[in-house]
Amino acid sequence: MTENPHREAPAFTAAFAAQFRDLVHWRRDVRRFRPDPLPDGSVERLIELACHSPSVGNCQPWRFVLVASEGRREAVRASFQRANRSALDGYDGEQRALYARLKLEGLEIAPVHLAVFADEVTERGAGLGRQTMPEALRYSVVGAIHTLWLAARAEGIGLGWVSILEPDVVAGALEVPADWTLVAYLCLGWPVEEHLDPELERAGWQARAATADIVLRR
Amino acid sequence: MTENPHREAPAFTAAFAAQFRDLVHWRRDVRRFRPDPLPDGSVERLIELACHSPSVGNCQPWRFVLVASEGRREAVRASFQRANRSALDGYDGEQRALYARLKLEGLEIAPVHLAVFADEVTERGAGLGRQTMPEALRYSVVGAIHTLWLAARAEGIGLGWVSILEPDVVAGALEVPADWTLVAYLCLGWPVEEHLDPELERAGWQARAATADIVLRR
Repeated sequence: MTENPHREAPAFTAAFAAQFRDLVHWRRDVRRFRPDPLPDGSVERLIELACHSPSVGNCQPWRFVLVASEGRREAVRASFQRANRSALDGYDGEQRALYARLKLEGLEIAPVHLAVFADEVTERGAGLGRQTMPEALRYSVVGAIHTLWLAARAEGIGLGWVSILEPDVVAGALEVPADWTLVAYLCLGWPVEEHLDPELERAGWQARAATADIVLRR
Repeated sequence: MTENPHREAPAFTAAFAAQFRDLVHWRRDVRRFRPDPLPDGSVERLIELACHSPSVGNCQPWRFVLVASEGRREAVRASFQRANRSALDGYDGEQRALYARLKLEGLEIAPVHLAVFADEVTERGAGLGRQTMPEALRYSVVGAIHTLWLAARAEGIGLGWVSILEPDVVAGALEVPADWTLVAYLCLGWPVEEHLDPELERAGWQARAATADIVLRR
């Protein structure tokens, strides 16, 4: 840990920084859940913390939808199945066989379904910071999701992000306002297993890149 | 902190979870930097950790550009000035006067400029998870930025995200590959001051929303 010669702020110890690194390394996208529920109020607490994430112009554009209705969950699963079948059809040969074996979501078992949207027309923030890069609004929602993800994992709660979905179908099934854009559909619950390596690395789909490949100096 | 009845994983203590909450609450977008440099290697270490963030299909699409050239930094500052002047022209009356007084970036003083791009055509991940939501690729880059942000703050390093920029101008000034999309331009350095509340809240631009306003049940 580096030393800040000007520090007057909350002191985070080197032990905390090391544990934070462990958390980032071990986080994982979880797709295998136990069916037992999370303790009452735990998801609400995670959402409350996520709302302290950064947002462009402080516009706080994140909108969380807790999906409990079995009918709505079934519509989301059907959307996944269509999108996944269509994705499978885009692969050939060995890659297709490998894709077909992957476990890509936990929609059947996860006790909590949490959809996260961006409110594209929020008046909060009065547009500050998003004239030339309007996508910064949706990026703010992603930051909140990442906070929620790390906070969940710090409590041992598993979280998986499902993006193999038809966003308009999901928005329709959840009857959200027309100006909300789906950013993520999350499954939460206790994980069945723990791994240090990503499932897609373990399954032979995609290995880790060398950091040197992705840094330029200008 | 909730109890995981099935835990076999790394145990993060309640003290760690509490410190993580403090970190999220205190993070801030920093715009006032001291000019002294960060210790050698600290930014590279933050980037290395950020590369352990989640990415759709494990495609690791983040690309980091360390901008040291004064000429390129000047081109970025000029882009900010144009975009900011144009944004100012969109406000009237009191809001315009307030906007004009805000400190929105630290481009003059911050010792480190770090641009972050999404490689839109990476072959890594073979497209998995981004057929129906291709934006998930850029969202993965945002997650990496958020990891980097939290890790920096845990060491007392300040970070500010500048989005009042013309993305094509910045990409051109940095001579990055044509298929890279600018996601964020970050300033890093030691902060001049520490605050628990967001600068835009303190300056009267935008107050905090009630969490209850942003959660639906379906």
